[in-house]
Amino acid sequence: MPERIGFIGLGIMGRSMAAHILRAGFPLTVWNRTSSRMEELVAQGANAATSPADVAAQSDIIITCVSDTPDVRAVTLGEAGIIHGVHAGALVIDMSTASPQAEREIAATLAAHGVAHLDAPISGGSEGAAKATLSIMIGGAAADVERAMPVFQVMGKTITHVGDHGAGQTVKLVNQILVVGTMRAVSEALIFAQASGVDLEKTLAAVSSGAAGSWTLSNRGPQVLRRDWRPGFTIDLQQKDLRLVLEAADQVGAPLENTAAIFQMYRALQAAGLGSEGNHALIKAIERMCGIEVGSNA
Amino acid sequence: MPERIGFIGLGIMGRSMAAHILRAGFPLTVWNRTSSRMEELVAQGANAATSPADVAAQSDIIITCVSDTPDVRAVTLGEAGIIHGVHAGALVIDMSTASPQAEREIAATLAAHGVAHLDAPISGGSEGAAKATLSIMIGGAAADVERAMPVFQVMGKTITHVGDHGAGQTVKLVNQILVVGTMRAVSEALIFAQASGVDLEKTLAAVSSGAAGSWTLSNRGPQVLRRDWRPGFTIDLQQKDLRLVLEAADQVGAPLENTAAIFQMYRALQAAGLGSEGNHALIKAIERMCGIEVGSNA
Repeated sequence: MPERIGFIGLGIMGRSMAAHILRAGFPLTVWNRTSSRMEELVAQGANAATSPADVAAQSDIIITCVSDTPDVRAVTLGEAGIIHGVHAGALVIDMSTASPQAEREIAATLAAHGVAHLDAPISGGSEGAAKATLSIMIGGAAADVERAMPVFQVMGKTITHVGDHGAGQTVKLVNQILVVGTMRAVSEALIFAQASGVDLEKTLAAVSSGAAGSWTLSNRGPQVLRRDWRPGFTIDLQQKDLRLVLEAADQVGAPLENTAAIFQMYRALQAAGLGSEGNHALIKAIERMCGIEVGSNA
Repeated sequence: MPERIGFIGLGIMGRSMAAHILRAGFPLTVWNRTSSRMEELVAQGANAATSPADVAAQSDIIITCVSDTPDVRAVTLGEAGIIHGVHAGALVIDMSTASPQAEREIAATLAAHGVAHLDAPISGGSEGAAKATLSIMIGGAAADVERAMPVFQVMGKTITHVGDHGAGQTVKLVNQILVVGTMRAVSEALIFAQASGVDLEKTLAAVSSGAAGSWTLSNRGPQVLRRDWRPGFTIDLQQKDLRLVLEAADQVGAPLENTAAIFQMYRALQAAGLGSEGNHALIKAIERMCGIEVGSNA
């Protein structure tokens, strides 16, 4: 008999992930702060709970997928949080992107109640959630990873147990450093190409398959050329993740000058009202400075 | 009957490229500043010339592959340069990485003598030259690209005619902006991972195949973990290419803050005596600042 799953946080990612769990045949109880978001899943057979504690009382494995570290703390340890309904022997899995240090603290608090914990943040965006091709980076004990694997497998493709509590979040932050740093490189390259007057499509074709190649160049480069700013991941969320990166880097003494500069560029774009655009709109921070607009003469 | 090829500049790249031309059955005349470098090719059937002008006098298509813009000018337009031996109707192809503006000037000077010109810089490193898998980015007239195609095809794989004179160099510089920007992102990501204490091999495995992925991460990441600084491309050459990028960017008004910072980092590593190490040793600029050494606890 499959374990009973609880799912807290039905945002753009969580909704798809919960639906995959349901379709795979797991009994599912859901909760979301905005309760109307639960209706679609209830129509598909999920059970709606009245609070995170209520989810926990009805579940063996409780998954959280919320926006930021304070939200994770609130639904897990706060008033009417998981900790007030959970039974000993349960497993709590946080799939949000949150502070590695906070994950270690939450894991320790739950352990004192006989409850196991994994941090298992995801990468791949709303498309990856919809197609169940997410990358999942997991921190915690091997036995708990093994227990959760049947659930991870209905949501993701590249599932990696990277280390102890917090390590999943650390590797997610590594991922974000790479994503934004590569995005900045692509931005400068396209600004230079545009200013130099070369054909941008031919330029992408010439450089994408060699040593200059990246996922970002192949996927976001053409989108920038079309000036299509629809988000795979928004500037607001990216900027939040970079705050986590810089806080964690500060704690371990890692000097991330480039990532810090990109954080400021995203902050400026938020101030300009562009927070809901895709994170590839980073290039606008350079465009606005010099008045060069990529793809504008196409 | 195949055109007679001349090849000037038998460095680490040029040597392999000239050998491919010879093996493909083209009559080949070579010249190199350090004349001993010609011996190997002469043993394989090439003809050794006494100067670039002498190469030009015996060739229909003359290829140059030298270190920097002043060298290109010298072998093409200088004393005993190509221009003093070349016949009308010949085609000169510069496969060095050099200033786009200089290429336009050289093309105009040669055109006044009835000589065609292409700039056709390459990407792919010594390995790409040896395996004939180079990317070749070409600027110039379509008819000349067509004429040169049989020669390009014995040296490269991704062969792209990107625009008019100078455009090949511009796209090569775009390539270099991408290469070093991605390298900086990889460097900060690995420094953060190391300082955070996560397993570096598992971290690479978790992030390499998704939105954070790049050629640099997959190829240079593992090399950094092994602290293997053997060059695919040296810091000295990379720093020279970035000088070309920043000069060209200055001319067109493109603000490349990240590339400018990386130029300074490479400059510092040269001052520290590391100019002959691979360009992925960029990470040492961060390591030396904070005393964190990636892979040192492996």
